[in-house]
Amino acid sequence: MAILCQPAVSVPDHVITMEETLALARSMHADHPQLPLALRLIGNTGVQKRHIVQPIEETLKHPGFEARNALYEAEAKARVPSVVERALDNAELRPADIDLIIYVSCTGFMMPSLTAWLINTMDFPSDTRQLPIAQLGCAAGGAAINRAHDFCSAYPEANVLIVACEFCSLCYQPTDLGVGSLLSNGLFGDAVAAAVVCGRGGTGMSLERNGSYLVPDTEDWIAYSVRATGFHFLLDKRVPTTMEPLAPALREISAQHGWDAEKLDFYIIHAGGPRILDDLSRFLHVPEEAFRFSRATLTEYGNIASAVVLDAVRRLFEEGGPGDDAHGILAGFGPGITAEMCLGSWTSSRPKGASLQSMLAPVRLPHLSATTEPWS
Amino acid sequence: MAILCQPAVSVPDHVITMEETLALARSMHADHPQLPLALRLIGNTGVQKRHIVQPIEETLKHPGFEARNALYEAEAKARVPSVVERALDNAELRPADIDLIIYVSCTGFMMPSLTAWLINTMDFPSDTRQLPIAQLGCAAGGAAINRAHDFCSAYPEANVLIVACEFCSLCYQPTDLGVGSLLSNGLFGDAVAAAVVCGRGGTGMSLERNGSYLVPDTEDWIAYSVRATGFHFLLDKRVPTTMEPLAPALREISAQHGWDAEKLDFYIIHAGGPRILDDLSRFLHVPEEAFRFSRATLTEYGNIASAVVLDAVRRLFEEGGPGDDAHGILAGFGPGITAEMCLGSWTSSRPKGASLQSMLAPVRLPHLSATTEPWS
Repeated sequence: MAILCQPAVSVPDHVITMEETLALARSMHADHPQLPLALRLIGNTGVQKRHIVQPIEETLKHPGFEARNALYEAEAKARVPSVVERALDNAELRPADIDLIIYVSCTGFMMPSLTAWLINTMDFPSDTRQLPIAQLGCAAGGAAINRAHDFCSAYPEANVLIVACEFCSLCYQPTDLGVGSLLSNGLFGDAVAAAVVCGRGGTGMSLERNGSYLVPDTEDWIAYSVRATGFHFLLDKRVPTTMEPLAPALREISAQHGWDAEKLDFYIIHAGGPRILDDLSRFLHVPEEAFRFSRATLTEYGNIASAVVLDAVRRLFEEGGPGDDAHGILAGFGPGITAEMCLGSWTSSRPKGASLQSMLAPVRLPHLSATTEPWS
Repeated sequence: MAILCQPAVSVPDHVITMEETLALARSMHADHPQLPLALRLIGNTGVQKRHIVQPIEETLKHPGFEARNALYEAEAKARVPSVVERALDNAELRPADIDLIIYVSCTGFMMPSLTAWLINTMDFPSDTRQLPIAQLGCAAGGAAINRAHDFCSAYPEANVLIVACEFCSLCYQPTDLGVGSLLSNGLFGDAVAAAVVCGRGGTGMSLERNGSYLVPDTEDWIAYSVRATGFHFLLDKRVPTTMEPLAPALREISAQHGWDAEKLDFYIIHAGGPRILDDLSRFLHVPEEAFRFSRATLTEYGNIASAVVLDAVRRLFEEGGPGDDAHGILAGFGPGITAEMCLGSWTSSRPKGASLQSMLAPVRLPHLSATTEPWS
């Protein structure tokens, strides 16, 4: 049984409010023919503030792809370890208990990935598996949870650390002047999130089923153009309409599990923008209130890409969590257009007062052997 | 039981021989103070020829990161589908039978990854899971096999398609003049490889155990510097010495499985360079002949990054394969420095003449549910 334990999330100290964003857009794009539309779209996001790794004056400069990426690496190394420590504490685990690190990030590129540095720096075992994912964008948070679930299904003793590190402000491109870009400039924020998926024990969302869905022929709706100036985010105006094809995918996976997507106890949905949450609540006949965790992430942090779903789960925890056996769905959406969905039940199975150690196998297997069914 | 089936491999038509490489190095770097060393290192690689996606005259030009990456995308779209088709044929499967596509490539960057395009273009089901990995470099071939193994352990009915698409020639950087870069310019080649890991049935390497090992504090020995001109490959001169710490990792995982790394029936080793193969045969007391598949890949194609291990497995198949129950190890090495290792036994379990369909569950599950152990 793989349990998604309480995530830890950190956002940088530099804040930009919606008012400041709108004022900037007005002053920087005063003669833009579609400025009124861009302002209206930004206003409609409901993003009250965002946190960014540099002061806004620095964020608006483009020092070149190399300097940007070097800053990404420095900021990641400065900010990720403390979040990982808190995620491990939340799961009552130590680095030595982790079998796989899934690191997801689409806003900077390193090879080797930060996983190698984390293993060396934070004393994870040298045989910790590394799974860096850079190309699933905002869907990568859901993908990380789903691949962690799969891994714990293969190795029921295993624990997986998930890290989502997104510094979207480092992908700001001052020369991109389409309405989609202007909207993105007012939508995305920076954050680091981490969580452990525990194979045994823990309190959180017990992962039961996962699935993926690619909306056919929408590859170019959300995409990076890769240039000398770095990654240029392309957001097609049709993206806000994608809940129409994605709502049935959420219904279908729920039905396969014998659940009704309209009547779940909790919902963790990628807060890509306000329309996603509005439309999905309409298509699934779910009250808006059901998406309050995702909405709060959007309002307070903006779209923090792959970290959204982990931050929304954190908020669910901080509300006290639903009762035991509450049924829920988690869905990340991103380029493809891809949905990464999972279903699970809330569990607080670890008896209060019992240490995790007493409930774990006494010795960690250095290389886990997969559980396989004999085939004859 | 997850079986790594016969890989399909394709290399481009444009060929550059070692003689041509050496002549180019002599003419382009006539006044380089370390030219004699570079020539000796290139000569020692044993790489007789390499295949590249463009004529050498075009390869030596740098049209900018954007154009390079656009070429990567165009070449991938032109070359990957036919290789995928052959890999599916080898496994006697259709696109509809695939549950997960693992796409590994470190020589171009796309978001969404090519997985989305493949699903749309080749009629893979819309619920096929996507796992693109860009940051494990040459180790990604081994990592793809290992994650496919894990996935089939979680979902014993599942089939995983692995694609390794590496156009190393598109990372040629004319301004990089260190000896490591000059050597790399004579070492790396282009190739596309694909293979299916079948959950049920098939002939090939039955995957039994996998593991990863990170050589401590070697993050900067193999790395990309990410710049406006693209990815700059950094190869430290200490890399050829890494078999000393990695040979014990191969011994250890073998011992955990009750096997002796010195006495296996087949070896599939990442042919990063000649020293890796020479040293590993010495440290493991294995005759050079045991690495003939990897050596042939190096000699005929050069270091084709994550595709090496799949090409070496192809050669093992083409030799007729070892007998049933032959024990073997596969190891990919790459940045980190990371080893991705797996152990398996040769199996030709599918009776000749029996169709795969008759041995598979009659209906493919649209969303597989993980096999989990109840926890009480």
